[in-house]
Amino acid sequence: MAYDANALPDVSGLTVAIIGGTGDQGRGLAYRLARAGQRVLIGSRNAERAQAAAEEISALPGVTRPVGGGANGDVASTADVTIIAVPWEGHRATVEALREPLAGKIVVDCVNPLGFDKQGPYPLPVEEGSAVQQAAALLPESTVTAAFNHVSAPLLADPAVDSMDLDVLICAEDRDAANVVAALAARIPGMRGIYAGRLRNAHQIEAFTANLIAINRRYKAHAGIRVTDV
Amino acid sequence: MAYDANALPDVSGLTVAIIGGTGDQGRGLAYRLARAGQRVLIGSRNAERAQAAAEEISALPGVTRPVGGGANGDVASTADVTIIAVPWEGHRATVEALREPLAGKIVVDCVNPLGFDKQGPYPLPVEEGSAVQQAAALLPESTVTAAFNHVSAPLLADPAVDSMDLDVLICAEDRDAANVVAALAARIPGMRGIYAGRLRNAHQIEAFTANLIAINRRYKAHAGIRVTDV
Repeated sequence: MAYDANALPDVSGLTVAIIGGTGDQGRGLAYRLARAGQRVLIGSRNAERAQAAAEEISALPGVTRPVGGGANGDVASTADVTIIAVPWEGHRATVEALREPLAGKIVVDCVNPLGFDKQGPYPLPVEEGSAVQQAAALLPESTVTAAFNHVSAPLLADPAVDSMDLDVLICAEDRDAANVVAALAARIPGMRGIYAGRLRNAHQIEAFTANLIAINRRYKAHAGIRVTDV
Repeated sequence: MAYDANALPDVSGLTVAIIGGTGDQGRGLAYRLARAGQRVLIGSRNAERAQAAAEEISALPGVTRPVGGGANGDVASTADVTIIAVPWEGHRATVEALREPLAGKIVVDCVNPLGFDKQGPYPLPVEEGSAVQQAAALLPESTVTAAFNHVSAPLLADPAVDSMDLDVLICAEDRDAANVVAALAARIPGMRGIYAGRLRNAHQIEAFTANLIAINRRYKAHAGIRVTDV
């Protein structure tokens, strides 16, 4: 069936934790979701750093619902949906430590395993196939999805940007979880969440971030993608 | 610098060969380019099959410039730019056989190495990294690029579709060749050719076709992608 934002579940009452919420991508997603009225909790290894970031985000233009902050395990156990937005280097250890607080919950992995050299970015090999498949292997009692891999952190962070006119590609094994993530994406003006296949097809979405960086360099842009004919 | 179709080279005088031009993707690309006024030659292992396809395409609505057809080696040696649009299974053998006729020329590989099982499509591993890197290894005297990987064959083939509102992602090592391919894409109404990185970042573009197929199934669409903010 065609994409229909009105057919997506009501997620306005859900609490979203962002692990790695003190980094650029996590902070930007927290800002956009909080600005859309979502209850957001910033997670960090250091609870004080998380609280400091939460206070900063709460003070940004357009945020009407204060953002909370705390240690990773605490925010993960409180939230309904948890977004993993840590650097790839810390992915395995961070996710592994959250197995219990994330049991029975929806997890959204937006981590892109990339390396950089003189020629620019390139995808790193991942034993499990992709970051999200690694998370799924480490979190057998959670419902793990991939999304928000391509969203430009500078655009997310820019208060002058009212509308993010791009699509969030969602990989998932579970249709209901994909719909929840699509509904969260749709809370952000201009954004759609589009189901884009199973987890085994997430590698190329993570890796495509290298291409977006190449596009950004070539065209001096903050590129995203829009799926046509949907 | 920003994308600017007017800054691209004039390719209106170039002849384009399409190897595998009797398949759906090749035939569709031939139709669109011929409809845009490009000189197009269909290549096939069997010259008669190529000529038959060329005659069929020439008779389609909007084609003002008749399409030619011939054996792969003959059309490749005549053309300025050659598009490889064969099934992945025949990729290595077909490309290998064209090393001499393609020497010194621009090659555009649009082949996507995919497997299919009960859960749908998935990317196949390629020893060289991607189909286009395999072509580059087999054609050391050619300038090899990847492009047109995501263009929907049914849309290409539908005479009622006047405008293909999507972007063609181009991977290349050579900036001038990328510009020629971008200019060819821009000949087709609605289409842009966007440079998207080096050949080592082509794998995920080829593999992303599996995601587009998943999107097509989920949303009953002929999905393509548009790069935003460019």
